[in-house]
Amino acid sequence: MFKSIGIISKLGNAQVQDCLERLVKFLRNRSLEVIIDVTSAQQLLSSSHHELNIVADLDVLGSRCDLVIVIGGDGTLLQSARLLAKYDICLLGINLGRLGFLTDISPSDMEEYLSNILNGAFLEEDRFLIYAEVYRDNQRLSYTNALNDIVVHRWNMSHMLTFETTINGHFLNQQRADGLVVATPTGSTAYALSAGGPIIHPSLNALVLVTICPHTLTSRPIVVDGDSCIQITINFEQTGEAQLNSDGVLRQTLQPGDRITIENTNIFDLSTPNLTTIILLYGLN
Amino acid sequence: MFKSIGIISKLGNAQVQDCLERLVKFLRNRSLEVIIDVTSAQQLLSSSHHELNIVADLDVLGSRCDLVIVIGGDGTLLQSARLLAKYDICLLGINLGRLGFLTDISPSDMEEYLSNILNGAFLEEDRFLIYAEVYRDNQRLSYTNALNDIVVHRWNMSHMLTFETTINGHFLNQQRADGLVVATPTGSTAYALSAGGPIIHPSLNALVLVTICPHTLTSRPIVVDGDSCIQITINFEQTGEAQLNSDGVLRQTLQPGDRITIENTNIFDLSTPNLTTIILLYGLN
Amino acid sequence: MFKSIGIISKLGNAQVQDCLERLVKFLRNRSLEVIIDVTSAQQLLSSSHHELNIVADLDVLGSRCDLVIVIGGDGTLLQSARLLAKYDICLLGINLGRLGFLTDISPSDMEEYLSNILNGAFLEEDRFLIYAEVYRDNQRLSYTNALNDIVVHRWNMSHMLTFETTINGHFLNQQRADGLVVATPTGSTAYALSAGGPIIHPSLNALVLVTICPHTLTSRPIVVDGDSCIQITINFEQTGEAQLNSDGVLRQTLQPGDRITIENTNIFDLSTPNLTTIILLYGLN
Amino acid sequence: MFKSIGIISKLGNAQVQDCLERLVKFLRNRSLEVIIDVTSAQQLLSSSHHELNIVADLDVLGSRCDLVIVIGGDGTLLQSARLLAKYDICLLGINLGRLGFLTDISPSDMEEYLSNILNGAFLEEDRFLIYAEVYRDNQRLSYTNALNDIVVHRWNMSHMLTFETTINGHFLNQQRADGLVVATPTGSTAYALSAGGPIIHPSLNALVLVTICPHTLTSRPIVVDGDSCIQITINFEQTGEAQLNSDGVLRQTLQPGDRITIENTNIFDLSTPNLTTIILLYGLN
Repeated sequence: MFKSIGIISKLGNAQVQDCLERLVKFLRNRSLEVIIDVTSAQQLLSSSHHELNIVADLDVLGSRCDLVIVIGGDGTLLQSARLLAKYDICLLGINLGRLGFLTDISPSDMEEYLSNILNGAFLEEDRFLIYAEVYRDNQRLSYTNALNDIVVHRWNMSHMLTFETTINGHFLNQQRADGLVVATPTGSTAYALSAGGPIIHPSLNALVLVTICPHTLTSRPIVVDGDSCIQITINFEQTGEAQLNSDGVLRQTLQPGDRITIENTNIFDLSTPNLTTIILLYGLN
Repeated sequence: MFKSIGIISKLGNAQVQDCLERLVKFLRNRSLEVIIDVTSAQQLLSSSHHELNIVADLDVLGSRCDLVIVIGGDGTLLQSARLLAKYDICLLGINLGRLGFLTDISPSDMEEYLSNILNGAFLEEDRFLIYAEVYRDNQRLSYTNALNDIVVHRWNMSHMLTFETTINGHFLNQQRADGLVVATPTGSTAYALSAGGPIIHPSLNALVLVTICPHTLTSRPIVVDGDSCIQITINFEQTGEAQLNSDGVLRQTLQPGDRITIENTNIFDLSTPNLTTIILLYGLN
Repeated sequence: MFKSIGIISKLGNAQVQDCLERLVKFLRNRSLEVIIDVTSAQQLLSSSHHELNIVADLDVLGSRCDLVIVIGGDGTLLQSARLLAKYDICLLGINLGRLGFLTDISPSDMEEYLSNILNGAFLEEDRFLIYAEVYRDNQRLSYTNALNDIVVHRWNMSHMLTFETTINGHFLNQQRADGLVVATPTGSTAYALSAGGPIIHPSLNALVLVTICPHTLTSRPIVVDGDSCIQITINFEQTGEAQLNSDGVLRQTLQPGDRITIENTNIFDLSTPNLTTIILLYGLN
Repeated sequence: MFKSIGIISKLGNAQVQDCLERLVKFLRNRSLEVIIDVTSAQQLLSSSHHELNIVADLDVLGSRCDLVIVIGGDGTLLQSARLLAKYDICLLGINLGRLGFLTDISPSDMEEYLSNILNGAFLEEDRFLIYAEVYRDNQRLSYTNALNDIVVHRWNMSHMLTFETTINGHFLNQQRADGLVVATPTGSTAYALSAGGPIIHPSLNALVLVTICPHTLTSRPIVVDGDSCIQITINFEQTGEAQLNSDGVLRQTLQPGDRITIENTNIFDLSTPNLTTIILLYGLN
């Protein structure tokens, strides 16, 4: 089954370090190759580990491992998924955070769960990512990807944000609101849900657009095909700055006239256009 | 393009009759074959029409026509779609009702729009139907189909309805509520929207489950794959009766223990399993 | 403090009987006068109780007791409140039901809680009731009261209900919907909440109007002064029947043209116009 | 009736100037005393006006006028109300903005409406303001007032805001969300409505608390007595900055541990504690 296991860990306290040490020990006892992300490895206390394990950067993990175990909360797993999306890889989360939708295993049960998973007792779920590009004056300014959601949100302005949305080039609406969430099925249970969106089954190839605090009373969440191209243009007459966030992390400040395109195709790296999904593992018990 | 045109009309007042007369005259002037549904034809005032036109029952319309024009509101079009779903047919609605999501043309513009449509200026939209079966004591009690939605709703009971829902055999939840809407994308802008559901793009193969007045505060609409099989079981300990409605029409009173299955496959007529969609026509101008 | 205690119990199983027996025994041991509602008393097993206690009808309980203890769920307490609203009385609920918003005490803690309460460790909360009258052809057809809510709901009709609402004689709106909830602050956490209403603090003199599954997307819950007079008129052109429910219990079937007035004044018994509240007791521990 | 009329105008384009000129001319022709806010007066083109009219600062307007007419949108009227709340004054809005809930009169009808109003054809509505204080390390840092709402909103942080709310010293809840709106009845149709709150009748003495994008699914708007004291404390462990806005205008950046108190008492100027309302005028026609 899995032969080479990568490990990514959030930086943290003694609990994180303990979990990391236990995980490395557990995997080595099963004679599996273990590759630790170089930043995460700084937390390994015993220097002997460094000799026994391969410490490498994320690209090595992505190229060489068939399973990457992420120690942290949903935020750590989301970040790992974004960074590793271009590799054909499985992700498994050990939850040290507040609440884990994506991270399935608690540290106390870690060894038992992992034994089962390494013996084949797991479910695989394909989760697709979305890719966003920001254009200013017809020049691409920046790009990012997200497993949960891309959010355009007003920021340094005292009024609501005015923006226009198109789907596959067709005008959808012009809205005044605090912002707009474009979420994958994975993200439909995260911020989009707080903003009033529906839950989308993970197996459905769909995106949901949820307006945050819409000025009009008639705004409703809209579910579209996952292969749609969504374009959001900040109104030129808008004053002040907005933000583009991916998975809750600030990526770009936005100015009037900026245009954002969102789709599920890997527009950054056309050499791997189809690798736009990540496989999440869930233990069976 | 279209060679044989069927006509279905709601029964009504002078406005309906006038619209029907104008439509027959318009189509005959273009030398098209016109077949009028036998019940609708009762409204034709001039007996001469009867000689010139073919009056036939719906099965003849379905088998022989390539386009059926429906005069009425959304209700009339929904009914026509349910009855003609087993035929490979296009539907076009002339709106005499209050508000028409599905019926596109107003009587005043009828001739102009139809000219364009008959010249090929139209959009086709495939809309799929869903099929529901009711089982009592493991015997199939009744079945129905719907273009918009299947709704299970409490009726003669003073408490909320308790029911369990599964998707593809997997337990989803047990709920206490006024009821549950299972809507197609077409129906997502009808009753499901009133109950708090999202809008689903017509091109998406999906169903949305919206709980009506849920007892728990955590209930949210759920969007699932259109090929899912949804099963709703009325709690055995429930007292009183519930209702099963399709497209807003009462189909079956439900008792404790009744089980409803809903899917997009034509389970009634396995000889035409693939004809589970209707094509709606929208004029271009 | 409390000298004469009334008891009302739902009819039920061994658990109810056990709770009732324990309660009677507990109160008699403290040398308090105990008056048991005549219907509830049928559940007392030991005939000796009948000799020791006064068994009487509700009007005697209302006139003579200063505290009435209700054994059951919220439904039993709501019913008791409606029946005893015209008396100046305190109510305390022992919860045998599924979920108790109004009934505070569980049977296992009953004696301990009651000791505290009888020693003065309690909070009093004034909860007002609302009164509804139904008029047909300008004749009063029936009337009812409610601690939680008055609900107008469509019933034997396939379309939505069309009705007009006024507040203090001023036109508010005409709506198409499944129905309308008019709730007190007490009822704001019951059915009105399921229909999408806000929570109203119990101390606020206010009513909330929540439309159930409104046809228009712009409908929002409206909070008005508790002294408002709300009038709902079923559209004359409506076909089919609707229902008037008070606290979830069917009170009146409604026909097109029926008019319902709702206010917090005791319009049935003008001799006691000010006794339109009930005092709920909550234990402190 | 009204003898001395104040005028406040937003700074703007030719349309604003034209409206201002017409208004001054109209009032002077009726021999009313006209006092123009000194900033607004900069827009008066003809210097002759300056000689004929009194130009003064807002405190003079507040002390001397019995009616102040505001030219602009809701934003201008909200600002004027906040600044003049300590005076016993009537406000009337002429709407040059996008949408006017508070500003009743369009420029084209201005003279006709004003004639009626000056002849006594108007409705008066008392609208109360709320006052907010921000405390850091138990020192009052700043204070503000609002006619619509006080909003605490996350700002320079990538996570949701964690905060605790009390009402009259009683713990209400601890929440993770984008923020919290505390709105007056006047503000219930503004931002609070976008965030999902109910409409509160202007005559009701109540406040509504609406959580913006709550992390938990069970959050619901809460309506409390208008005399309540609401206290919001930003969680100490929170990282990043939040914002306090009054009527949509940034007033204070907030840090972890900051405490905000909100009530309808004029806590800034105890010499005029009762003047915490503004009277809005609406024309009758």
